[in-house]
Amino acid sequence: MSPVNIISEIITIGDEILYGQILDSNAQWMSSALDDIGVKVKYRTTIGDNEPDILDALQRAEGRADVVLITGGLGPTSDDLTKPCLAKYFNAEIVENELAMKELAALFKHIGRDLTETNRAQAYLPENCTHVPNKMGTAPGMWFFENQTVFVSMPGVPFEMKEMMTQTVLPKIQEAFHTPFVVHKMVKTIGIGESWLADKIKPWADQLPEDIKLAYLPSLGHVKLRLTTQGNDLEKLESNLNNQVERLQPYADKYIYGYDSDTIESVIGKHLKDQNLTIATAESCTGGYLAHMLTSVPGSSAYFKGGILAYANEVKIAQLEVKAETLEAEGAVSEQTVIEMAEGACQKLGTDIAIATSGIAGPDGGTEEKPVGTIWIAVKTPETISTRKLSLYKDRLLNIKSTSVAALALAWQTLNQSH
Amino acid sequence: MSPVNIISEIITIGDEILYGQILDSNAQWMSSALDDIGVKVKYRTTIGDNEPDILDALQRAEGRADVVLITGGLGPTSDDLTKPCLAKYFNAEIVENELAMKELAALFKHIGRDLTETNRAQAYLPENCTHVPNKMGTAPGMWFFENQTVFVSMPGVPFEMKEMMTQTVLPKIQEAFHTPFVVHKMVKTIGIGESWLADKIKPWADQLPEDIKLAYLPSLGHVKLRLTTQGNDLEKLESNLNNQVERLQPYADKYIYGYDSDTIESVIGKHLKDQNLTIATAESCTGGYLAHMLTSVPGSSAYFKGGILAYANEVKIAQLEVKAETLEAEGAVSEQTVIEMAEGACQKLGTDIAIATSGIAGPDGGTEEKPVGTIWIAVKTPETISTRKLSLYKDRLLNIKSTSVAALALAWQTLNQSH
Repeated sequence: MSPVNIISEIITIGDEILYGQILDSNAQWMSSALDDIGVKVKYRTTIGDNEPDILDALQRAEGRADVVLITGGLGPTSDDLTKPCLAKYFNAEIVENELAMKELAALFKHIGRDLTETNRAQAYLPENCTHVPNKMGTAPGMWFFENQTVFVSMPGVPFEMKEMMTQTVLPKIQEAFHTPFVVHKMVKTIGIGESWLADKIKPWADQLPEDIKLAYLPSLGHVKLRLTTQGNDLEKLESNLNNQVERLQPYADKYIYGYDSDTIESVIGKHLKDQNLTIATAESCTGGYLAHMLTSVPGSSAYFKGGILAYANEVKIAQLEVKAETLEAEGAVSEQTVIEMAEGACQKLGTDIAIATSGIAGPDGGTEEKPVGTIWIAVKTPETISTRKLSLYKDRLLNIKSTSVAALALAWQTLNQSH
Repeated sequence: MSPVNIISEIITIGDEILYGQILDSNAQWMSSALDDIGVKVKYRTTIGDNEPDILDALQRAEGRADVVLITGGLGPTSDDLTKPCLAKYFNAEIVENELAMKELAALFKHIGRDLTETNRAQAYLPENCTHVPNKMGTAPGMWFFENQTVFVSMPGVPFEMKEMMTQTVLPKIQEAFHTPFVVHKMVKTIGIGESWLADKIKPWADQLPEDIKLAYLPSLGHVKLRLTTQGNDLEKLESNLNNQVERLQPYADKYIYGYDSDTIESVIGKHLKDQNLTIATAESCTGGYLAHMLTSVPGSSAYFKGGILAYANEVKIAQLEVKAETLEAEGAVSEQTVIEMAEGACQKLGTDIAIATSGIAGPDGGTEEKPVGTIWIAVKTPETISTRKLSLYKDRLLNIKSTSVAALALAWQTLNQSH
């Protein structure tokens, strides 16, 4: 067991994953959580609920990894084989685990139900393991340390596994292997593509010290920059990262909207709340998705008053007071239409700000002049109106989501310029 | 190579998957596509971009599988090792593949760009493979048949891999292994939980012949029933399944809204189009998500005219003509409020149908009388108004999505009863 370069393997057990019935999102979450404490996953193996494959996978993992995390196959029914296989592998008896039984009894007392035989069996564990408490369910986890290798078995239910990892398993791994602190800082940008951003911040990226790693993580309309460093002095690590984030500002402040768990919709929400401003939406092609993003933020009712979904032209006229002449002369997908939609929303819903969208989401409805993916967005504040034309894709859902993100980016830029 | 019981293994290559930076959705898609042609995946292995691990995984897969599908590590840069590793494993030279070069040249001619040295290198393949055309990108796939085992290497980019699988790899596997036809029929239900549905259809499920398998696939507000059968007479297999679906009707027709690729929003849309009816939404707690579901259907502008998002009470009053007395006496989360919202939407937007939602999505805003998750929905048609009270969860996003699905379920039931 070396303090650096700890190798880990994830073993997922379950036919339903092999046959493609469910997506193995656990493995990604565990990989990322291990990466956060400086432990790299080097192998992932998925096998079915059968003894020879499970025993074979355990043996192979022991030969090449220091930490082996196992999920799945821990239910109370007979097709769940992980526990008997672990006992067989370690040549251990399955005995009543006092702590596990105590916790199980307390859980059943709390929910006011009797402990059945099937449930009691869940507190019987291989004699050579330490039990890992399960606060979210009835199957305890198991921690083994054999032949210089840590094996941890956890249930496959995502929220049970995550709770166990966070509360018990990750801290125990850090303790057992004396892993260094690994500190991340996420810088979130919007409104600029990955390669353009890389060009702009090159002088800053080139001066980063060796012990700070930079990763670009692009997603729909966003690029996240992840800075990572590790060492033993937590305070110093954090101040080093904050220092670099400050140095980054002059190169990219037009694009940086937040840090770590911030989202563009939560940052806009915070700004509106702080400034005591209200907002409305006037959507055509985004069909409600833009409002959904804004209202997915807890507490958004403090600044989001409502919106008008104006799919049909007569609704644009009647509910948003878009002029019939504008629709006639410029068409529904035009700069003037989204300007009038935003103005109408502010006026009708009595808000300070409004965001408007109108475009051809597809797959049909495109023309030579305005092909599918042609979209206009507008943001009205008390001081100004900003507009932008987008030329997006052939895919309806992608256009709906990309337009919503682009509209929030324009809103954030416009609000920032106003102050 | 036995015609039944073909064992397959999926090998995914890439550090970005091991470190948890991206979710391996390819593996699930491939598992499910193989399952559809009667080939079970028995092992999944994920390894990084390094030669010893790749060679080791190939050897191990050859020893236990008939079909080995490999994705990732096929890009033009030097950290992509899959091709050289396959050449080394099979002890083969990498030579220019004429067909692959022809296709690459045609692709570059089509996009009007010159073929660079780096790109040309992509048409050099191990001499013992057959190239698999890539219509969506520049890296061709490779099909090997060595030692009674099929190995296929494909790019990790999802849409490139899916196109290759569908167009070339799956048909070639079916041909090589003479796999039987596997036919699925999906029956989609809404508005009933899995165990209640199972009780209702038990007499039908009990009479199913041995060669028709039934699976329950639950998702948010839905339960899908999947019937699967396999054999050599395609026509007979399909008629057997259709026969059973017909027999199922009397037990569950109140809950079956569609089949195969139908969604509840597409089925409602088709009904409205056929009956020449229009629809609007009046949303409070769902914040636009309900309208987003309806408008995610291509062509929905034929029947969806628009919606009012009434988050604030004053918007409910001004835009939907909900009575101030109703809000005062019953509160915004009440049966009478959603009735007035639906009536207001029909009237203001000039539609035949309207769906309304109002509730406490959380995490804050609950009271003892109306805790978080208390939600009312209403559906108005020209003939009737239906309402329903929901008692949902503590989670905001889950409440938004569950309410939207429940509102569509109520709309579907109400529309069906009207005719």
